[in-house]
Amino acid sequence: MGNEFLNIKNPDDVKEIINNIQTNKKIEEVNIEQSLSRVLAEDITATINLPPFRKVNMDGFAVIAEDTFPASEDFPVELKLLEAIGAGDVPKKVVENGLCTEVGTGAPAPEGADAVVMVEFTDLADGKILIHESVTIGQNITKEGSDIMAGEILLSKGTTITPEKIGVLSAVGMKTVPVFQKPKVAIISTGNELIRHDGELSYGKIFDINSQTISSAVSSCGCIPVHTEIVKDDYNELKEKINEFKDLDIIITSGGTSAGRGDVLRQVLDDIGEVLVHGIAVKPGKPTIIGRCKSDCGYKYVIGLPGNPVAASMVFQLFFAPFLKEMASIKTKTILNIINSIELEISRRYRPAKGRKHYVLVKVDGKNAVPILKDSGAITALAEADGYIEIPKNVEIIEKGAKVLVHPLGNW
Amino acid sequence: MGNEFLNIKNPDDVKEIINNIQTNKKIEEVNIEQSLSRVLAEDITATINLPPFRKVNMDGFAVIAEDTFPASEDFPVELKLLEAIGAGDVPKKVVENGLCTEVGTGAPAPEGADAVVMVEFTDLADGKILIHESVTIGQNITKEGSDIMAGEILLSKGTTITPEKIGVLSAVGMKTVPVFQKPKVAIISTGNELIRHDGELSYGKIFDINSQTISSAVSSCGCIPVHTEIVKDDYNELKEKINEFKDLDIIITSGGTSAGRGDVLRQVLDDIGEVLVHGIAVKPGKPTIIGRCKSDCGYKYVIGLPGNPVAASMVFQLFFAPFLKEMASIKTKTILNIINSIELEISRRYRPAKGRKHYVLVKVDGKNAVPILKDSGAITALAEADGYIEIPKNVEIIEKGAKVLVHPLGNW
Repeated sequence: MGNEFLNIKNPDDVKEIINNIQTNKKIEEVNIEQSLSRVLAEDITATINLPPFRKVNMDGFAVIAEDTFPASEDFPVELKLLEAIGAGDVPKKVVENGLCTEVGTGAPAPEGADAVVMVEFTDLADGKILIHESVTIGQNITKEGSDIMAGEILLSKGTTITPEKIGVLSAVGMKTVPVFQKPKVAIISTGNELIRHDGELSYGKIFDINSQTISSAVSSCGCIPVHTEIVKDDYNELKEKINEFKDLDIIITSGGTSAGRGDVLRQVLDDIGEVLVHGIAVKPGKPTIIGRCKSDCGYKYVIGLPGNPVAASMVFQLFFAPFLKEMASIKTKTILNIINSIELEISRRYRPAKGRKHYVLVKVDGKNAVPILKDSGAITALAEADGYIEIPKNVEIIEKGAKVLVHPLGNW
Repeated sequence: MGNEFLNIKNPDDVKEIINNIQTNKKIEEVNIEQSLSRVLAEDITATINLPPFRKVNMDGFAVIAEDTFPASEDFPVELKLLEAIGAGDVPKKVVENGLCTEVGTGAPAPEGADAVVMVEFTDLADGKILIHESVTIGQNITKEGSDIMAGEILLSKGTTITPEKIGVLSAVGMKTVPVFQKPKVAIISTGNELIRHDGELSYGKIFDINSQTISSAVSSCGCIPVHTEIVKDDYNELKEKINEFKDLDIIITSGGTSAGRGDVLRQVLDDIGEVLVHGIAVKPGKPTIIGRCKSDCGYKYVIGLPGNPVAASMVFQLFFAPFLKEMASIKTKTILNIINSIELEISRRYRPAKGRKHYVLVKVDGKNAVPILKDSGAITALAEADGYIEIPKNVEIIEKGAKVLVHPLGNW
């Protein structure tokens, strides 16, 4: 009654198969306001100098530095005031020896002036400005282009755009930026028993869970979930849908992957493409399929997740989330990519499954990792889990208090 | 010429003032598809049992367990087949002694049956089903409500909605969920020299940076930036804007906070409300203002960031990002809230500013924290920085190779 998993693969081999999938990254221009968290698809070159003019960086008086050399607290130098300009103003007069211009922080330094005396070291007497301290050439003036020169590379291809990076792009007046397109993913739940979460439940039916969890997880990976649909466990219906979605970047199904009566995805892929993986030696998640079929622009990949929602979520996070993030050029948000798991103590003795690498959902309680001991189909296990631990296939028992590495489930 | 900062406050006192700000959290209903990363505003109670019926969890035959007790590999029990049902089907016939129903995984267990024999232990002979192994009562059937019972709390108030949690909500057919509203924030850049990033630059003007960085940072904190505007360093214009935006949750300005000619925010707040903080003993970020004015629904808070974009970003991240996240009920995405910084070695001897707590931007290079030694106004410093280190005000020098704690800038 149905094929068994003839060629079950170990998790590392599956990861290698996934790593070798070729994807082509497309580029789009987005407005800078919409660019947060996107990834630059090209180097960005400064189009203007920063600052764009000689900029005063203290409130005070723009002078010719050598005029101030004799100045001291007791013997101030007297200068004649030409004009007063603030940030945003344009100086009208040239500073010559014996003259000065009152300037605000951010104002352009007037022609002729080569330094600014801070307002704290000045005084007003008989309509003259008294300078009590000498300044050196260049003091309190930032040179044009000293932060960056037009033509220099401002941000490199592959940079994730943070608020701070948006600031840098704004500083040179970028209006749009080239970023990698978000891959488009079709999500199909298969199963005669499934009702959309906004539909009406009848006897023998259950609400579809996977299309919702996988859609949100796909969004979290920087991709766009499209065409979230439920189809029957039916060869023709599934084949039609897969053909319909062939121009998207990837197709993810769930259910219909078990060796047995419901194994329609395998049959469809055998007929219209090829199956690369059918069965992974992990628990949960054994009945997982990776296949591909030819389309106009190379291979289109089809990921078949198990129907069991806990298994579907785990397999997605373990094997496919890193791949989708890579496709979307999203960097995993670990602390500087150094820390992506945490060592805790297991709260009780645990006996893993035999013969398969076992992923166990855990709740974090202080310094303890508490295994969630529910039926593998219990959706509430997902509600409680903070992360998971990975148990190699030859471990027979983990004693209470043993150190275990907890990996986050989704984004912490 | 202008007030000095009369009453400069130390950073811990400022944090305490911010922590004491009362905010009222509003609730809204959103569609489950839009609920990713939002925070539940109420406990969610299951409205149905999960599973909603007695569910078969193996492909096989639904039987009365006691019929199978004599069965063995060599002496199978013979049962008569009533019907075959798969997931989503409704059984029409009642299983009685001597009878069985073929069932698929996920199908409802037929009335009368109290166990399922896996298909691997069965055979077909002369139109009869041969059972080669006995089963116990309840075997391979999941009881109705065993995962969760209607009326039980499924997810608690305050839970951040992850893909997995969306799965749990879908499982009970939730269509909408009550979540905390995203606070609405007005963002105002003040300065006569500022040009919108999509405008035309002329001599003496610079592109506005802060409204872009602060808007994106506000979004990252789970709030909605609205009315991002530039106003002149003008008392009346700024006062008008603050009055206009009084019905929003918070107002953030930048620029116009220095003691000196541009100090308009202080004057406005003195007249229409009160100033709680003017000046923080940190570098960068000294000229920061916190004020409030009365509105119809309690106090409205105004945050005045420095005009210098590096200082504005740092002060925002240090003092106000945690506050906005708290307002938005967003949990900071640290690894299980245990790790939010990382110890690295400083790459060179560093001499901090005197008399103020000094925050130094650093780049992370392997195991080294490399201080960014640029002018405090250099916007490119932000482009390069991965994080910052915090140097207490009494430290005179940090030797090369010393351990420093690096905090992420924004979200890593």
